[in-house]
Amino acid sequence: MSKKIACIGVGNLGRAWAAIFARAGHEVALYDNAPGAVAAALPAIESTLNSMAEADLVEDVAAAMARIRPCETLTDAVAGVDHVQESVIEDVEVKRAIFRELDRAAPPDAIIASSVSSIPPSEFMANLEGGARCIVAHPVNPPHLIPVVEIMLGPSTSEETYDACCALLSGVGQVPVRLNKEIFGYVLNRLQFALINEALHLVDGGYVSAEDTDKIIKYGLGRRWAFMGPFETNHLNATGGIEEYYSKFQGAIGGTIKELFLEPHPLNPELISRLAEEMERTTPVADVPARQEWRDRQLMALTGHFGDMQPEKD
Amino acid sequence: MSKKIACIGVGNLGRAWAAIFARAGHEVALYDNAPGAVAAALPAIESTLNSMAEADLVEDVAAAMARIRPCETLTDAVAGVDHVQESVIEDVEVKRAIFRELDRAAPPDAIIASSVSSIPPSEFMANLEGGARCIVAHPVNPPHLIPVVEIMLGPSTSEETYDACCALLSGVGQVPVRLNKEIFGYVLNRLQFALINEALHLVDGGYVSAEDTDKIIKYGLGRRWAFMGPFETNHLNATGGIEEYYSKFQGAIGGTIKELFLEPHPLNPELISRLAEEMERTTPVADVPARQEWRDRQLMALTGHFGDMQPEKD
Repeated sequence: MSKKIACIGVGNLGRAWAAIFARAGHEVALYDNAPGAVAAALPAIESTLNSMAEADLVEDVAAAMARIRPCETLTDAVAGVDHVQESVIEDVEVKRAIFRELDRAAPPDAIIASSVSSIPPSEFMANLEGGARCIVAHPVNPPHLIPVVEIMLGPSTSEETYDACCALLSGVGQVPVRLNKEIFGYVLNRLQFALINEALHLVDGGYVSAEDTDKIIKYGLGRRWAFMGPFETNHLNATGGIEEYYSKFQGAIGGTIKELFLEPHPLNPELISRLAEEMERTTPVADVPARQEWRDRQLMALTGHFGDMQPEKD
Repeated sequence: MSKKIACIGVGNLGRAWAAIFARAGHEVALYDNAPGAVAAALPAIESTLNSMAEADLVEDVAAAMARIRPCETLTDAVAGVDHVQESVIEDVEVKRAIFRELDRAAPPDAIIASSVSSIPPSEFMANLEGGARCIVAHPVNPPHLIPVVEIMLGPSTSEETYDACCALLSGVGQVPVRLNKEIFGYVLNRLQFALINEALHLVDGGYVSAEDTDKIIKYGLGRRWAFMGPFETNHLNATGGIEEYYSKFQGAIGGTIKELFLEPHPLNPELISRLAEEMERTTPVADVPARQEWRDRQLMALTGHFGDMQPEKD
């Protein structure tokens, strides 16, 4: 069932959302308050769709592009929509202003979802008349190649809104997960930086190089985490499952956890410079754009390998 | 160049090492001091090699099996070898005793590598006459399907030993990484449990379910970490590389790190039971063995996808 979607803000995230919704058969209205931004976004979206087509993630790029409608006003963009995906800059005042405006302008039964990545929803979704239909849907960069979307409920978000938002996102091939309560940094980035904080301490202390840390992840932990999470990994580490695993290895697990650095690394410029020097040897900054393309091709190849991120067929 | 290897201890790790070395063309002597253990290991190794053959990771299982020689004594097993891979139980007294015995019995120029996973090498490699040729080579389970091996230098390990051990392991398709100094839990498990500690706090606090935590990894962070580490991920997050990324997002990164739980989760039985109940709904304990086979097939498929873990050709 084709729906009407408004993508508000057309930076990298907004463009990816437009590609995601349009390839799945939805009608997409595009709006950005920066003059010329929407016009600049269209060829970028087409380029994204073309690269997805090479990986069999889009069947008909021209048809998908034909479903995208550039708009000159926010009111025009949200007229008659089922879902608004807001992806403006990460600034609490800007988010407050756009949510007030969207809540006034969007049809009363439309869902208004924010791509916000760290500001807690209570800071910009509180005291809105339509607070029940406002929700956080935080994607991972690049959203058209990484399935997970963190859904965080705001102070008045209804369960109906949660269900409808998840249904829409699952239908376009993403994987929504539920964050039950507000927490700074949300979950994905907290998990990422818990690991990175430990890694920074280890590199800073001279225990291991940044390059070997990367190898430990990509040739070690990442092999398992590509298709099962850490708890399932634990669960499959003992024939009696996770309970047997944690009781059998209580000493080793608890002992390792107690020995972790468990203090915020100061992110001092000296260490960041050392990391930069080390990265320069493997991927010089001049090669970063080419390596970013390599990364996206690797992500597309993994999508093909796992056969996911496909929109539901009508 | 075919080498002579002794695998001492034939539990899961020792069996996997035997398969790894034999498929790469090396001669493998097998020894375990438990009566009947070596005889029991042979069909298990053959079964591992057969499953690897299905994934094009072994060409000739019979030829690989013919290179494995069961031994009745440790002296016989280490006679004339180039490399000893010790994989006996994780107990410091047992490790001390076996290293004394191996250092006496193995040829003076043979390397003696331990599969030890957490005991620091100084606790069992100190005061050995041949300390220079002793080293830690800690694999990840299952080693024949996960490439990384943590190489930790002991108190007297020579650089020659490090180089030779890495050359051997790279030659059989593994990926050795260097840990420069002793640290409890080594690096891979510290990184794993830094992330898991944060995850335990988040699940315990009701922010997210264990199932959704697993989804955040496998459909989110794990997509990137399957082919690049966390530092390369950071490096590719800004066109100016890791230095630009950390200065641009200093506030968000440092802010998230400061907000991490950063205290050891108590691993209380109530939470472990809750995790077990939740896992039971997705993978009942009765299905764990079948799911372990699924995991190994997934790992083999990823090996095929990335085209690695192949031994060097002569």
